[in-house]
Amino acid sequence: MSRTPVKKVVLAYSGGLDTSVILKWLEQEYGCEVVTFTADIGQGEEVEPAREKAQAAGIKEIYIEDLREEFVRDFVYPMFRANAIYEGEYLLGTSIARPLIAKRLVEIAAETGADAISHGATGKGNDQVRFELTAYALNPDIKIIAPWREWDLLSREKLMSYAAEHGIAIEQKRDGTKSPYSMDANLLHISYEGYDLEDPWVEPGGDMWRWTNDPQDAPDTPLEITLTFTRGDVTAIDGKAMTPAEVLAELNRIGGEHGIGRADIVENRYVGMKSRGCYETPGGSILLKAHRAMESLTLDREAAHLKDELMPRYAELIYNGYWLSPEREMLQAAIDQTQAVVNGDVRLKLYKGNVLVVGRRSETNSLFDESIATFEEDAGAYDQGDATGFIRLNALRLRVQGRQR
Amino acid sequence: MSRTPVKKVVLAYSGGLDTSVILKWLEQEYGCEVVTFTADIGQGEEVEPAREKAQAAGIKEIYIEDLREEFVRDFVYPMFRANAIYEGEYLLGTSIARPLIAKRLVEIAAETGADAISHGATGKGNDQVRFELTAYALNPDIKIIAPWREWDLLSREKLMSYAAEHGIAIEQKRDGTKSPYSMDANLLHISYEGYDLEDPWVEPGGDMWRWTNDPQDAPDTPLEITLTFTRGDVTAIDGKAMTPAEVLAELNRIGGEHGIGRADIVENRYVGMKSRGCYETPGGSILLKAHRAMESLTLDREAAHLKDELMPRYAELIYNGYWLSPEREMLQAAIDQTQAVVNGDVRLKLYKGNVLVVGRRSETNSLFDESIATFEEDAGAYDQGDATGFIRLNALRLRVQGRQR
Amino acid sequence: MSRTPVKKVVLAYSGGLDTSVILKWLEQEYGCEVVTFTADIGQGEEVEPAREKAQAAGIKEIYIEDLREEFVRDFVYPMFRANAIYEGEYLLGTSIARPLIAKRLVEIAAETGADAISHGATGKGNDQVRFELTAYALNPDIKIIAPWREWDLLSREKLMSYAAEHGIAIEQKRDGTKSPYSMDANLLHISYEGYDLEDPWVEPGGDMWRWTNDPQDAPDTPLEITLTFTRGDVTAIDGKAMTPAEVLAELNRIGGEHGIGRADIVENRYVGMKSRGCYETPGGSILLKAHRAMESLTLDREAAHLKDELMPRYAELIYNGYWLSPEREMLQAAIDQTQAVVNGDVRLKLYKGNVLVVGRRSETNSLFDESIATFEEDAGAYDQGDATGFIRLNALRLRVQGRQR
Amino acid sequence: MSRTPVKKVVLAYSGGLDTSVILKWLEQEYGCEVVTFTADIGQGEEVEPAREKAQAAGIKEIYIEDLREEFVRDFVYPMFRANAIYEGEYLLGTSIARPLIAKRLVEIAAETGADAISHGATGKGNDQVRFELTAYALNPDIKIIAPWREWDLLSREKLMSYAAEHGIAIEQKRDGTKSPYSMDANLLHISYEGYDLEDPWVEPGGDMWRWTNDPQDAPDTPLEITLTFTRGDVTAIDGKAMTPAEVLAELNRIGGEHGIGRADIVENRYVGMKSRGCYETPGGSILLKAHRAMESLTLDREAAHLKDELMPRYAELIYNGYWLSPEREMLQAAIDQTQAVVNGDVRLKLYKGNVLVVGRRSETNSLFDESIATFEEDAGAYDQGDATGFIRLNALRLRVQGRQR
Repeated sequence: MSRTPVKKVVLAYSGGLDTSVILKWLEQEYGCEVVTFTADIGQGEEVEPAREKAQAAGIKEIYIEDLREEFVRDFVYPMFRANAIYEGEYLLGTSIARPLIAKRLVEIAAETGADAISHGATGKGNDQVRFELTAYALNPDIKIIAPWREWDLLSREKLMSYAAEHGIAIEQKRDGTKSPYSMDANLLHISYEGYDLEDPWVEPGGDMWRWTNDPQDAPDTPLEITLTFTRGDVTAIDGKAMTPAEVLAELNRIGGEHGIGRADIVENRYVGMKSRGCYETPGGSILLKAHRAMESLTLDREAAHLKDELMPRYAELIYNGYWLSPEREMLQAAIDQTQAVVNGDVRLKLYKGNVLVVGRRSETNSLFDESIATFEEDAGAYDQGDATGFIRLNALRLRVQGRQR
Repeated sequence: MSRTPVKKVVLAYSGGLDTSVILKWLEQEYGCEVVTFTADIGQGEEVEPAREKAQAAGIKEIYIEDLREEFVRDFVYPMFRANAIYEGEYLLGTSIARPLIAKRLVEIAAETGADAISHGATGKGNDQVRFELTAYALNPDIKIIAPWREWDLLSREKLMSYAAEHGIAIEQKRDGTKSPYSMDANLLHISYEGYDLEDPWVEPGGDMWRWTNDPQDAPDTPLEITLTFTRGDVTAIDGKAMTPAEVLAELNRIGGEHGIGRADIVENRYVGMKSRGCYETPGGSILLKAHRAMESLTLDREAAHLKDELMPRYAELIYNGYWLSPEREMLQAAIDQTQAVVNGDVRLKLYKGNVLVVGRRSETNSLFDESIATFEEDAGAYDQGDATGFIRLNALRLRVQGRQR
Repeated sequence: MSRTPVKKVVLAYSGGLDTSVILKWLEQEYGCEVVTFTADIGQGEEVEPAREKAQAAGIKEIYIEDLREEFVRDFVYPMFRANAIYEGEYLLGTSIARPLIAKRLVEIAAETGADAISHGATGKGNDQVRFELTAYALNPDIKIIAPWREWDLLSREKLMSYAAEHGIAIEQKRDGTKSPYSMDANLLHISYEGYDLEDPWVEPGGDMWRWTNDPQDAPDTPLEITLTFTRGDVTAIDGKAMTPAEVLAELNRIGGEHGIGRADIVENRYVGMKSRGCYETPGGSILLKAHRAMESLTLDREAAHLKDELMPRYAELIYNGYWLSPEREMLQAAIDQTQAVVNGDVRLKLYKGNVLVVGRRSETNSLFDESIATFEEDAGAYDQGDATGFIRLNALRLRVQGRQR
Repeated sequence: MSRTPVKKVVLAYSGGLDTSVILKWLEQEYGCEVVTFTADIGQGEEVEPAREKAQAAGIKEIYIEDLREEFVRDFVYPMFRANAIYEGEYLLGTSIARPLIAKRLVEIAAETGADAISHGATGKGNDQVRFELTAYALNPDIKIIAPWREWDLLSREKLMSYAAEHGIAIEQKRDGTKSPYSMDANLLHISYEGYDLEDPWVEPGGDMWRWTNDPQDAPDTPLEITLTFTRGDVTAIDGKAMTPAEVLAELNRIGGEHGIGRADIVENRYVGMKSRGCYETPGGSILLKAHRAMESLTLDREAAHLKDELMPRYAELIYNGYWLSPEREMLQAAIDQTQAVVNGDVRLKLYKGNVLVVGRRSETNSLFDESIATFEEDAGAYDQGDATGFIRLNALRLRVQGRQR
């Protein structure tokens, strides 16, 4: 395969083994200059060490950025306004982070005069699609190098031997252990794939999970919290105002402690195969439950139902990598249009894996009218006789059909 | 208001205070003969005592029937094939039972030569709609008497005084207590409305819940079970074949023990108001989770996504009372068409309110292909290079738009 | 039936027989003051004569308004951005006008201190629903008087005799004829119901149609026109800038001449029955065809497909009277979000009932890329080899299922 | 590029220049045996000449089949039950024929022991996708050779010179003319692409259209016909029973005479580009209009609306090549479930491009109830007072929101 000529490439670089190998491989195979880009999106590992490593590898243009607030504010929060869940279970933790990375890669390419970008996603997964669709949408002429689709370093062993051969340091994790799983983490979640998960009948080993307590080991006493919503977004916990990233970090902390947000699923990838993944999304699981509760009090029935009908499509778009597409923006416009009234407080109990809603209120936007809903006499707020006509006209077409049979 | 003349009416009769008052009221106001119909749909109270009470009230035609198998086989199971949830939370326990009752009322009317049916649902709720739409669909000329929409006994006190006046016995519950909530139960669930639930910010008293342990009081040891699916329906638990009603009863028993299936929600009624309800659906909560897991392994991606998109509409139809409608039957045809392949086993852990999927397998219908999904080398099962063309053509329209901007 | 006490009522008043009778009947039955409101929404009859009639009837507050521009700009145009068609055939001409009338009734009630509004729509049709849902949404406490649902003047004869009795003048149409059909007209369309249309097998008499030439009588020479779109709306015809109402009036004129826009349909009313209606929508038929053609060149595929999927719901909402609802506003937000790029020209031929698109172009927003689409060699604009991977990954799930069978 | 080894290949062979070149190229490049398959699907050219040509090329296994009945019965008719239209204009004439061809290619491969199939569709179009998805679904291990994606004969000139070089006869069309357009025809339609259509602002030359009269040249007298529907399919014209293929052929004949079914559109291809195509679908245009009219009388409102909402998805699936997919089969099950009641007659007038419905009736399944729909007094068939409750409850949520604002 002849390589497309590339002058300079911006690489999504973590400093780990894979992207260190890619860095070297790009220089060797493409003979091009490499710019590294390392982002803190809340993966829980420090990003500064990547600078030193990149310098050691002779890189001149090194970008290291803290994107946590942008990530939650512009990606996670809009997605949660939609109550997005993929295939009934997956909160899209990996999917929603990719467009932001890709966006910065393309922007940095423009800033540095690079004509290409590169990433470490494999040719079997969804992430390559998410990176590349976003990049192409932003810069139709950008060149994209996906080494996993090009090279022959297709096993861990080959990768290690390439690293050894090229003097790339292979570090242990700081805690001395090495997870056998393929993992991805950001402020919204951590995911696990591969290893014993490849048999969907087998339960993963208990030491796989990293962010959450096993519900059995979580505190025996429930924790009660109150989330405050402003236009569909959480803006305070227990009355304390916080930024989006602060909210999510805090919910991760307490959710993780209480064993919340584990999921073990078989999902359908966009590239056509089924795969098994495990996810920890403690804060996101709390957000979703609370947002639905807030909407239940403040959102109109038909708007809510329409949101529910559109949600699977919206979630699929994000999963498949179409964040930056006209159709996602169209759906977002519809979703956001409904959120102006989603204001108020939700009271929750967290207990050993459970997120229990125990109260919701809205000073300004509650549509719950106790005078109508009451089981006691309602002093004329609702005329029960109206129901007769309501039922009879709704039944009319069914009755005509009944006669016709 | 002048009453439509009625000759004979079939009354959905529980033997409790409300329907005993209705029985008497129908005789008095309509001067018509009353046939009573009492069904065991798994509400957990014996139905035979209703015979004695009806006899004591002078009723000559008394129908008492065990509909549990029909209920689960023909109503609950088809609904769970759709993974139906209303407004993200409610498993439709009350909604799905009403059409069956209405169907029997109409059939008994035909058998007994009655020209009317009657029920004890109020004019504010959904149940009146569910009863009456079904009845009208089956017999367009049936007369329907809904006393709550006609009479002025609109408070509990007035009802009690009418009962006293007419010599209707007011019994305590067998356990000596009297719940302050308005409740409904069947093999799928028990529901609570009214009383302190009328303030959606207030957590209900802990003694409200009747079927499930508080998660805090549930066993400290998880229970692992295996459910076997045949064409989308559970046909065995831990390898033991069971009928539909047996499956649901057993899942209720173990789910209840492990604190599973409580929900506290604000929902949108079809008649236009928001109301707050609490539900216990232990067996149903397990069924839903397990069915999704079984589908995740055996169902095609696009069929699964289409099911997810249609589900909210399907759930809304059932909630609103349109079980016996062309549109529900149309959706059911689509759903059932997909279930031939939903065969296999799902392994679950039940623990203090959690239903955790830990494994799924299908000898005959698994679409999980480990040789493709593996993170190791796949010996050519999947050509990573294919992803390049896949992404590039999916990106084409985005690139053209990018250029155009 | 006891009347709700009413102080002052705003009546949608045409000056014709029906609303003249209603005016008198309101005064008599409700003993209330009547304010008349007459709007020019392009029905093609002068509205000023209504003033004289109202004065003759002793009315003190008389509102007569020209709403044509508001009607097209704020109601018709937004609807056409959605390509809305009800049940595959009906362009919603009556439906879209009702919310505007209702809005003005409620506003005038506020201005004049009236506590009620009244309209002349019958209890069998959709219009009562459209008027009243809009009115209730704007003023939840407004009283609404729908005489046709209250009185016993249910035949034409009874109405005439009431008119005679109360000295209400019964005029002939200005052209001396009296149509046997129930008609409604505004700038978007004219409709016909009743009389020989009540048998859906019978073709209506040729003299029923009022706005359009029979295609057989239309000119033998096609007329070619060019419509200019700006953000999804037509802003010029043949290069001449026009206001929305001017555009629609002109398209009605030339469309009517060329026999365009007749429809003869059986439709499903919201109140539950099927009814047969005939419609002439010359300008609207041209608008719809042209708008689709403009979108075909400028709108993204997936946005266009999503619009197509949402359209039937949107049309149903308008038909059913939910213009002023959260769900319609939500859909409108999505639709409008897509229209920024719908700019350019569409060339049409009008000929004996046909609207034929013969060209479309957009200087600024065309997504048609001839270099890619060409059947000749494309100099690398498109790599045909990409299709292999595209197909193979899209086929992957189908192949796995094929193997599994 | 190294060729996958192939033993024997079944080629979709028309006998024309392109597939004759492909035949030779396959033998040369793959060194494999070629089986030819030529189908009569109503393209209007005789298929027997292909036998002679194949024999002349030395082919031993030659399949020539008349698939017209199967095509209409099992593909066209099911699709028309859905009222399928792609992007508001295109009746899917090419799309629906491809799966049938692909199915026969795979079946013939099995019969003849071939390990591959081949087709003449280019790498830019939809047809390659439709052929190959179907083939892969039926035989996941089939090899597919798409010469246009492999070879370098990418212009007409190169193709001609290859033909000349290899002694392949280049015939004129029988009528002596050679269309400059890329065309495709079957019993449902004929399509045109390329040449002057590549500028979407330009009207195609009048001699492009082959099947239909220009409306201006069509008869001056309308033709009235009656179509009889049985379970959603046309089974007779003017009372004369016909097979599906006979129906479509006859409707093509009379529709073509009356100038019906021309479309000139810009469409979105699945492979990502916009392209301009012209289509003649005379019979299909009549079928669609008539089917909707038959449904309007016999189909339930909500089933009809649900069909309308699902239709764009269904049409997209067929356009994109997913005829043989679980999701299309799922939708078909829903659609077919509704058609049992679609029985009766539709009366149409055909006139210069117009298909006008002038009557519809159903002895057995009409849901049009004149006693309810009438504008005269209805003797109690419909209680207008019911509308009050109907409207008030439908308005309840809007009123609560109105109060809350």
